[in-house]
Amino acid sequence: MRNIKLTLEYDGTEFCGWQVQKVKSKKEKRKNRTIQGELEKALSKILNKKIKVIGSGRTDSGVHALGQVANFKTNSKLPLKNIQKALNGILPQSVAVIKIEEVPLNFHARFDAKSKTYRYSILNSQFNRPLLNNHFHRVPYPLNFPLMKKEIKCLKGRNDFKSFQASDKKERSSVRVISKINLSKKVNLIFLDVTANGFLYNMVRNIAGTLLEIGRGKFPPGSMKKILRAKNRKLAGPTAPAKGLTLREVKYG
Amino acid sequence: MRNIKLTLEYDGTEFCGWQVQKVKSKKEKRKNRTIQGELEKALSKILNKKIKVIGSGRTDSGVHALGQVANFKTNSKLPLKNIQKALNGILPQSVAVIKIEEVPLNFHARFDAKSKTYRYSILNSQFNRPLLNNHFHRVPYPLNFPLMKKEIKCLKGRNDFKSFQASDKKERSSVRVISKINLSKKVNLIFLDVTANGFLYNMVRNIAGTLLEIGRGKFPPGSMKKILRAKNRKLAGPTAPAKGLTLREVKYG
Repeated sequence: MRNIKLTLEYDGTEFCGWQVQKVKSKKEKRKNRTIQGELEKALSKILNKKIKVIGSGRTDSGVHALGQVANFKTNSKLPLKNIQKALNGILPQSVAVIKIEEVPLNFHARFDAKSKTYRYSILNSQFNRPLLNNHFHRVPYPLNFPLMKKEIKCLKGRNDFKSFQASDKKERSSVRVISKINLSKKVNLIFLDVTANGFLYNMVRNIAGTLLEIGRGKFPPGSMKKILRAKNRKLAGPTAPAKGLTLREVKYG
Repeated sequence: MRNIKLTLEYDGTEFCGWQVQKVKSKKEKRKNRTIQGELEKALSKILNKKIKVIGSGRTDSGVHALGQVANFKTNSKLPLKNIQKALNGILPQSVAVIKIEEVPLNFHARFDAKSKTYRYSILNSQFNRPLLNNHFHRVPYPLNFPLMKKEIKCLKGRNDFKSFQASDKKERSSVRVISKINLSKKVNLIFLDVTANGFLYNMVRNIAGTLLEIGRGKFPPGSMKKILRAKNRKLAGPTAPAKGLTLREVKYG
């Protein structure tokens, strides 16, 4: 038995996220294409056996990845290079295996993940930018970048991020450790980069949505700290759209 | 009468190029969507009159633009900002008017263009990169970048580019002046930037295709100069795919 680790890049635009969903009809199945589903379908074809893939975590419908990690077990002795080549030949153009490695049998893509890095990308422009459309959330109003940069500082470290947790999800603990958080700007593109030991459902998108309310002046300075401390989702801003979010890296011990 | 200049960005992936084509059926029309066609349709709707748009030049099916220029004449007194806003509201998400200006009545987007800059973008990778798919031509074999950089030098200046002209197109003269040509690299992304007073049909894509043959060792060093001098399309490499090409800028006097 071998345990194989895949690093994946994908454009989430046309997918219903990472995780396979239970569907009834064939038509529904086509409409509900997921990355995990495409990957399992391709692997099962290549290895001639039903393969189950474990992802480092779900990404939502429309969310992209530059470095999603997954693993699967197989008895096949096919060389790794061949599996990668075959996968990239079968997978849709919007999904690619950019790295393949053999890992110890006890490696688990989800349980062993030590940290993840997400980027939220904002296009601050009055008009649409066709070449960036699918990977940026466009915001037409002026944004106070220096203030935004200041506001995110309070999020660093060990915090209860309950205010930024999707209201319909209840994880056992909403405490996470953000080890790195940064806001950068390149002309009218703004990037929010966040590294943490784990993320609550919609956490980055809720932080981004809140940050945009502060940047446009709808929430006063100091709001981020206040909202964080309140542990109340209702006080935070709206969930920013999925298309601006990219899972950039998953790190293991 | 006012003459209005538009600067446009578009993702050419889903378009049959810039220029309106003569088609018979409605179905064919839908299949043959062009940027010029979408623009004229939108303008005619906004200004309540049939509007004809002049582009700086055609871009082919699948070719993108960051700064295509076009102009049109109208008697409408609508403020420019309103026209731009209305256009961006009606145009498909893959086309945007990023600048609008009033220009002298004798301004002509095609005849007055002094120079154009194109970029040809290459992804040098064994596997597909989903987030770059639509805007890069992927080349899986190793490329000799320093040699490629050296080879393009001979193209600079006033030359007869007949070897790089689409064989089925016969323009009166195939002499053009390349004022700037550069090859740059960022990890495994390679960019060919060319500025000239004008371009022959498929010229950049034919230069890129030839350069790739040199870079992979199929054509020996010195080939670019030899091919240029031969004035024979048959000696040059294949036409590189449209999706790697972007019209970046059109300059006027």
